Amino acid sequence: MPSPRRALFHPLLDHLRPGRHWLPLLNWLPGYHRHLFLADFGASLIVAALLIPQAIAYALLAGLPPQTGLYASTLPLLAYALFGSAMTQSVGPTALTSMMTASALAPIAARGEDPIAAALLLALLSGAMLIACGLLRLGRITQLLSHPVVSGFTSGTAILIALGQLGPLLQLPLSGNLVPALLGGLWRALPQVSAAALSFGLLALAAFALGSELLPGLLRRLGVPPRHAGWAGRLAPLPILAALAVYATYAPGNPTLVGPLPTAALVLEWPSFTPDEVATLWLPALLLGLVGFLQSITISQSLALARGETVSPDQELIALGAANIAAGVAGALPVSGGFARTAVNANAGARTPLSGVLAAGWVLLVAAWLSPLLQALPRAALAATIILASLKLIDLRLLLATWRYDKRDAAALLATLLVTLCFGALPGIGSGVLLSLALFIHRVSQPQVVVVGRLPGTEHFRNIERFPVQTWPGLLLLRVDESLYFGNAQAVQLRVAELLARHPDTRDAVLILSGVASIDFSAAEALAQLDHGLAKRGVTLYLAELKVPLRQALVGSGLLDPLLERTFLSAQHAVLGLAGWRGER
Amino acid sequence: MPSPRRALFHPLLDHLRPGRHWLPLLNWLPGYHRHLFLADFGASLIVAALLIPQAIAYALLAGLPPQTGLYASTLPLLAYALFGSAMTQSVGPTALTSMMTASALAPIAARGEDPIAAALLLALLSGAMLIACGLLRLGRITQLLSHPVVSGFTSGTAILIALGQLGPLLQLPLSGNLVPALLGGLWRALPQVSAAALSFGLLALAAFALGSELLPGLLRRLGVPPRHAGWAGRLAPLPILAALAVYATYAPGNPTLVGPLPTAALVLEWPSFTPDEVATLWLPALLLGLVGFLQSITISQSLALARGETVSPDQELIALGAANIAAGVAGALPVSGGFARTAVNANAGARTPLSGVLAAGWVLLVAAWLSPLLQALPRAALAATIILASLKLIDLRLLLATWRYDKRDAAALLATLLVTLCFGALPGIGSGVLLSLALFIHRVSQPQVVVVGRLPGTEHFRNIERFPVQTWPGLLLLRVDESLYFGNAQAVQLRVAELLARHPDTRDAVLILSGVASIDFSAAEALAQLDHGLAKRGVTLYLAELKVPLRQALVGSGLLDPLLERTFLSAQHAVLGLAGWRGER
Repeated sequence: MPSPRRALFHPLLDHLRPGRHWLPLLNWLPGYHRHLFLADFGASLIVAALLIPQAIAYALLAGLPPQTGLYASTLPLLAYALFGSAMTQSVGPTALTSMMTASALAPIAARGEDPIAAALLLALLSGAMLIACGLLRLGRITQLLSHPVVSGFTSGTAILIALGQLGPLLQLPLSGNLVPALLGGLWRALPQVSAAALSFGLLALAAFALGSELLPGLLRRLGVPPRHAGWAGRLAPLPILAALAVYATYAPGNPTLVGPLPTAALVLEWPSFTPDEVATLWLPALLLGLVGFLQSITISQSLALARGETVSPDQELIALGAANIAAGVAGALPVSGGFARTAVNANAGARTPLSGVLAAGWVLLVAAWLSPLLQALPRAALAATIILASLKLIDLRLLLATWRYDKRDAAALLATLLVTLCFGALPGIGSGVLLSLALFIHRVSQPQVVVVGRLPGTEHFRNIERFPVQTWPGLLLLRVDESLYFGNAQAVQLRVAELLARHPDTRDAVLILSGVASIDFSAAEALAQLDHGLAKRGVTLYLAELKVPLRQALVGSGLLDPLLERTFLSAQHAVLGLAGWRGER
Repeated sequence: MPSPRRALFHPLLDHLRPGRHWLPLLNWLPGYHRHLFLADFGASLIVAALLIPQAIAYALLAGLPPQTGLYASTLPLLAYALFGSAMTQSVGPTALTSMMTASALAPIAARGEDPIAAALLLALLSGAMLIACGLLRLGRITQLLSHPVVSGFTSGTAILIALGQLGPLLQLPLSGNLVPALLGGLWRALPQVSAAALSFGLLALAAFALGSELLPGLLRRLGVPPRHAGWAGRLAPLPILAALAVYATYAPGNPTLVGPLPTAALVLEWPSFTPDEVATLWLPALLLGLVGFLQSITISQSLALARGETVSPDQELIALGAANIAAGVAGALPVSGGFARTAVNANAGARTPLSGVLAAGWVLLVAAWLSPLLQALPRAALAATIILASLKLIDLRLLLATWRYDKRDAAALLATLLVTLCFGALPGIGSGVLLSLALFIHRVSQPQVVVVGRLPGTEHFRNIERFPVQTWPGLLLLRVDESLYFGNAQAVQLRVAELLARHPDTRDAVLILSGVASIDFSAAEALAQLDHGLAKRGVTLYLAELKVPLRQALVGSGLLDPLLERTFLSAQHAVLGLAGWRGER
């Protein structure tokens, strides 16, 4: 009988067993029961209420007609439910992918070609490449992104989105999607803003801000149970949108509406495309897919960790790929897991991906029967919802935290943020990756080598500069605090020479390798050189705490043969062996 | 009074005191005396005997007239002596830089422009950029190259040079400088080789091989002192060249000679160039300079280490830069420190860069008074010297050594070698750098986390799979063997979860951070997440052996506040604290 504790840890291990997850649906569907369904059903209502206005808003943000967003909220959710391993992921159009779609389609639209066909191709290509990455087990690729870089990129994109939505909010003709163009356009267009547009925009912003942010707190203070107050906050946007739609018909200046929607609730068709279009779009599609994947995996892993579940990155690549291929077939723009929406889905009690399937059903019903309502939505109101959602993604707290912890991490965050603002999403994330790798290489290229001594009465060895420790004349104990490789081998040599010069009476020097997990070929050669060089100066080099696998590799290679005979199991053994016989234990 | 040992270590510390070396000449010239001069004088004769034929041969290898090589062996040596910090470096034309010059000039020559003017500009640009790198203190940039990558690159280039010299050796018209073109050309041209050319080429190869490689051993066996036998081997090429030159005038098929040299022994002139030429040549110049620097610093550092001296990489950048600017002004091709020649200089007893200045004097004298002799040298004989020198650079021993030590290092070596052979020097070294960085990132992205226990009767903790150690029920001791950063934070989380699943009775888990020298922001967050996640499963996380600077940074940031209160000084303290109170010490 497995112990209950083993069962608890079970899910964390799942990703380590390839094969189990190939159709994660089979993990949860057989055990599905009424309680789970009720939870998923409730969550699906909340998510649909959020998803429908988002779908239209993000389609407009991508420069596409509203139905491409609605279609993106149907079939892709079904595909994700089949293949996805994250239980509460809410797939669909997101601000980030829509924004990247807009930049990918800009050259296509400039050539006068059909942006909708290109968007479908973008989704198809992106899906195919995500599936390929998943089959190649490249899910761990996101580890190349540090949290500060991801945060800088997210905040930068959020600022770009919020700035860009000032155009529809104030009914101004803004173009461009980078900070210089946006600010310039805003500066020129601002004098033309009409009082009517300004007041409608501010009204919409205030209504959503009050409804979503302040209403729950107010209700709680009035004695409403916190759970109900939370639901009220999540559902509040619906009546606010309806009220703004009604108000817009009477408002001065006739705010722009979403306008006509096609009568078909969903059209399935394999999109046609030329090799030329594939050549233009494959790279943006790959990057869009990876950024969408990064967004999905970040939120779903953090939720899974809190719930004791596990998300398989490779399986998520396949699931998001399937969702995007479904988007391409359903005439929709590219999709990914949404940050805020997934959190809402989890908070609303969703337990399985069936919640997403049900939400897709609601979207289909609304698109089929309530499309007149959707057509009457004022664009400025949708822009207000996007702006408020974007502002929540701007994470100043993290900037402060990284600044306090490590200025270099904060610099990586700021650089990613600024490059994203001025040059766009792809240069931003690219420079962030390069910068954080460079910082890491820089950090490990200057390893600490410290002189240690023994804490009196113990067998513990500590830095002589920080602890009152015992040392022995003629014996220098040096602790190396980093794996050795070509990039730091030379620095270690020089540092040892420097420390020996500070301790000129040294006859025996011991390198304590407790912090050395690997030694590459160049570093092994450098150790041999160091041994040779010190011997010429009358100093004998010893090793201590060399890890067993390293010792085995070194013995097999013959690289350090004379030095390996001078290896002690531990620093304590070295002291006993080297200072001990002098009667100085 | 400084102890004698301190004085011994002194030179190793020099590079750590910026400023001392800005004109290294001042370090050795004031103390210069007769004995040093005699040593330098002797070495200069040997080096000049090697340098003069090399100068002509490498100029021809670069596709330039012979005087560009002779000029490169005059003024640049003086400039290096002024600024260089390596005592036995022999600067001048080298096979590697001449080969890179040939590829840099190929497009210029194809456009019908003057290759000599372009070569001077190449040297000037390369010099200016090396000086800039030196002033920016970028000397440590070569640390990005692992020894296997450098070896693969050197061997690849040596093979290319040797193959290319089969053309002049056999008096065949070979073109191209990459393996596919060279082998194809050889295949087509080989039927045309004349018996006379073949026999002359083989004779030259045999003569140099016997003279340089076998003569010293033969002489030693005949009772000649090893020192003199070595000198004979080093000077042997001169009579052999002379004999081949005489023989060539009578040989059938009239072997091609070096031909006319200008009457001026040296011409100083600032080269003229256009912005267009600078735009074409700056990148090849930068790469040529850096590869030349790499070659120089590798040989001079390994010689300096053996002699207890130090070479400052930044100073070497400046000195090589000055030498290349001198080359540009003196009408010469780009220069660097030569591998073999520097070793010969050191072996011949050189003590200071004055040896180079004297060698430059010999070159000037020979060029002024003995140019008829130089003109009569057969090209095939020079090609034979280049081939023999190149073959010595091919390091199969290192390939075998890396293969035995670590297959990944061997793969990096082979990939660099193959890319160099098929696509040239620059793609070769570029792919080598990227590959070795990728290997390193891969290595540290999968850190070891092992379960440890205490060696009975000691305070030492070792891997439970390798040592017979003591463990305690409910207490899991985990040692993390790598610095933590964004790239491995997630892997550590998963690995800890896996190990906990294998030890389901765990109530207390201790992370022993003895191998963790740094924790970046993302990793600190991951630790906090891990603590949180384990707490939910009823497991309390503790830390041990957290290094003091890391603790300070973490305390300041507040990132790990609750966890930091559960930190033990050492694994032993953790056991005493967590297992001790249960009476299980």
